[in-house]
Amino acid sequence: MAKNFSSREEDYSKWYNDLVIKAGLAENSAVRGCMVIKPYGYAIWEKMQRALDDMFKATGHQNAYFPLFIPKSFFSKEAAHVEGFAKECAVVTHYRLKNSPDGKGVVVDEEARLEEELIIRPTSETIIWDTYRNWIQSYRDLPLLVNQWANVVRWEMRTRLFLRTAEFLWQEGHTAHATRDEAIAETEQMLRVYATFAEQWMALPVLQGIKSPNERFAGAVETYCIEALMQDGKALQAGTSHFLGQNFARAFDVKFLNKSNELEHVWATSWGVSTRLMGALVMAHSDDNGLVLPPKLAPLQVVIVPIYKKVEQLDEIAVVARSIMDDLRARGISVKFDDDDSQKPGWKFNEYEFKGVPVRLAIGPRDIENGTVEVARRDTLEKEVLQLTDIGHKIQHLLENIQDNLYQKALTFRDASTHKADSWQEFNDILDQRGGFVLAHWDGSPETEQLIKEETKATIRLIPLNAREEKGVCIRTGKPSERRVVFARAY
Amino acid sequence: MAKNFSSREEDYSKWYNDLVIKAGLAENSAVRGCMVIKPYGYAIWEKMQRALDDMFKATGHQNAYFPLFIPKSFFSKEAAHVEGFAKECAVVTHYRLKNSPDGKGVVVDEEARLEEELIIRPTSETIIWDTYRNWIQSYRDLPLLVNQWANVVRWEMRTRLFLRTAEFLWQEGHTAHATRDEAIAETEQMLRVYATFAEQWMALPVLQGIKSPNERFAGAVETYCIEALMQDGKALQAGTSHFLGQNFARAFDVKFLNKSNELEHVWATSWGVSTRLMGALVMAHSDDNGLVLPPKLAPLQVVIVPIYKKVEQLDEIAVVARSIMDDLRARGISVKFDDDDSQKPGWKFNEYEFKGVPVRLAIGPRDIENGTVEVARRDTLEKEVLQLTDIGHKIQHLLENIQDNLYQKALTFRDASTHKADSWQEFNDILDQRGGFVLAHWDGSPETEQLIKEETKATIRLIPLNAREEKGVCIRTGKPSERRVVFARAY
Repeated sequence: MAKNFSSREEDYSKWYNDLVIKAGLAENSAVRGCMVIKPYGYAIWEKMQRALDDMFKATGHQNAYFPLFIPKSFFSKEAAHVEGFAKECAVVTHYRLKNSPDGKGVVVDEEARLEEELIIRPTSETIIWDTYRNWIQSYRDLPLLVNQWANVVRWEMRTRLFLRTAEFLWQEGHTAHATRDEAIAETEQMLRVYATFAEQWMALPVLQGIKSPNERFAGAVETYCIEALMQDGKALQAGTSHFLGQNFARAFDVKFLNKSNELEHVWATSWGVSTRLMGALVMAHSDDNGLVLPPKLAPLQVVIVPIYKKVEQLDEIAVVARSIMDDLRARGISVKFDDDDSQKPGWKFNEYEFKGVPVRLAIGPRDIENGTVEVARRDTLEKEVLQLTDIGHKIQHLLENIQDNLYQKALTFRDASTHKADSWQEFNDILDQRGGFVLAHWDGSPETEQLIKEETKATIRLIPLNAREEKGVCIRTGKPSERRVVFARAY
Repeated sequence: MAKNFSSREEDYSKWYNDLVIKAGLAENSAVRGCMVIKPYGYAIWEKMQRALDDMFKATGHQNAYFPLFIPKSFFSKEAAHVEGFAKECAVVTHYRLKNSPDGKGVVVDEEARLEEELIIRPTSETIIWDTYRNWIQSYRDLPLLVNQWANVVRWEMRTRLFLRTAEFLWQEGHTAHATRDEAIAETEQMLRVYATFAEQWMALPVLQGIKSPNERFAGAVETYCIEALMQDGKALQAGTSHFLGQNFARAFDVKFLNKSNELEHVWATSWGVSTRLMGALVMAHSDDNGLVLPPKLAPLQVVIVPIYKKVEQLDEIAVVARSIMDDLRARGISVKFDDDDSQKPGWKFNEYEFKGVPVRLAIGPRDIENGTVEVARRDTLEKEVLQLTDIGHKIQHLLENIQDNLYQKALTFRDASTHKADSWQEFNDILDQRGGFVLAHWDGSPETEQLIKEETKATIRLIPLNAREEKGVCIRTGKPSERRVVFARAY
């Protein structure tokens, strides 16, 4: 199984798709553009959810749940938002089916037409701010720090598993504040939470910055984002945090009495990450042998494979395996002893390698004699034989080491794939020959950004937070620029 | 706040609705029939989810995620299912909006009409069995034990918060098995899981049994259920587990090679509980002073309120409070010290009572002198002064005691509200005067059940598992009957 798929070199895009399907992460469904997230993929997503949810709660947020449906008219209330979101979306027009007159199946009952169409939420700012109007009266009701885990739908024409699907799972935080500064602080705090999650859990180094106006969320005053680099040199936006100003409060008439007893519009943020992170995780670390998962997100962290000819040998191995399992589980490490006798060890080795299990232990009769175990790590594919003494501690340490190593490897790759370009020629050469992030001067105009995008397919991924001031000239127009921004071709 | 809502006696239905809204559990949204689950309500639902999810995993199930949309034609594949589910549902007919020609807002783009309409899932058997066709080839792929946490939509005309809403949250397990016996064992196992959850977590005694054909899930061979009794004497179906036979495997052509190398249709189960449980929780235990929550599901289990005049007193109280909090948290008990000085203790007492916090501690200057704390329990409203010595252990014990007491109280109520009826007159008298469960003989025919429902609004809630054989005559028709079944008016 492990080798029966494309290599990254041959066809990166096919490699990704094959891997996601064959490793049992997700597959396409009967509904165009909608995926099925399979148990192994969902188990990773659950680990992501748990870690993120804990971080949201640690920063004072509570979960809630808002309706799937949004009345069509809500989209028109915020001028920029309607342009961005009320286009490619799923529209509910009827609420009943009836038996078909020809007796075959069911048809839409035209008498059950909704007075106002309902849109399946592509994002929930509108319905949430319509709700907040009743929740907020005074400064005592603020800040309101709410998150929701939900499914959303954006009708995409070209879809790819996890990266771009019509329906996807995500979390969306929606907060309300008494002051502009507090809302900006929240926006920035949640960007840091995302960056911490990407780096410490996904082992994925990310750049932090703000979007250019062209790439800004529809309805936001400022969009902050984290951007990661995939192994093919393309960038991937891994999370966004929006400062919404008073735009939605104005659109939905949400005011509060401040401490001076004056009515003011409320300040807002929203922020989200989605199952897209699953795609980023796969593309950042996996290799031609299959998945590579950072230990902190691996559904199974350690597998033990017995090597034996006779049943008595298996019995002896099982005793050692159970003792190792007890030790590991006491350390909060997930472990499985695979004594299924219908498969050979070699098949199992391939299978667990393909599934990205971070550490594989093999125990044979000679190990029993010597008090040893063979330890293989998935990230480097290195093997070594270790004494059983203190084995739980050694494996715990190894898992931490693998987590670090994956991060360092991704960081080294990103650094080696980040280049400065000081001319249009150089900019194009880097994009075509090496890919990666390109640091270049830009004159700050949306028109130039659009031009560059049309000519090179590269977009401004972000303007780095605290970007160093550096005078220069725009690579495309030669007009003056104050700082470099980060360009890349992106997912 | 606490008293500013209807009593159960006055208007049970209004009491319920007021309580759900004023305690911050849920409210109606701008979309007809769809609720907003507010943070306090969602925190309870999260606790329910976590406990259930742990139980599902402990019984070998994995989570996955299937599409929100189901192609309309899928509903017609299983003859009984289409009758039950392809009627009142949300239908997506278009995938794009466009700017209105009159410049005001957006309208549906008629050019973006779907070739086949998509139905928002009312339940997912069809899309899941369509998927399972590709997952199952041989007996080695079985059993397949999958659960999904999701939102579903059933277009209800009359809705009530949590109890009946157009969109609701639930989990739906969908399993596939090689044999009929194994599938039935799974159906029964999951019923027991639900009963255990209801009794041990929700403190809600439930009857276990099977549904009569009239009340069976559309497409099931047998529907098992748990039924609980609410304080107004009405029954509430709290969970169902369905043995689906080979119905969906036939409809979606899901076959497997058995050990004898023969192709067979797969055997199926499905089972679910929903946010309806939130309604059951409120209606089972709460009182005219507000919510009463079983400690195991209370978002906040203990609150500490300081009683003081001078700041120095608060400082002393805070020292004691912190020590209690450390002790309780080490025991896994959630606790809050409410030192907000903008509210008086009496207001706080009312507030936490209203919110159903199981235990309230009050500490004043005299307690500091005496080394005591005043402990109030929400279930009985009793107060006592306890020595601080060993206070963590005492409170832990008290929480267990409250959990038990709520269960016992509900059980006593149910037992007192369960009556045998041996004549039509008696049956009607009990329903009209006392409500509750009525054990009565029924001739086993759907027509009689329908007749009884029309005449009394009571339905057969279940035929108890292992119901004792007892010869008798049907209360309505006088025809012979082999056992009593359980009738009630129900939510």
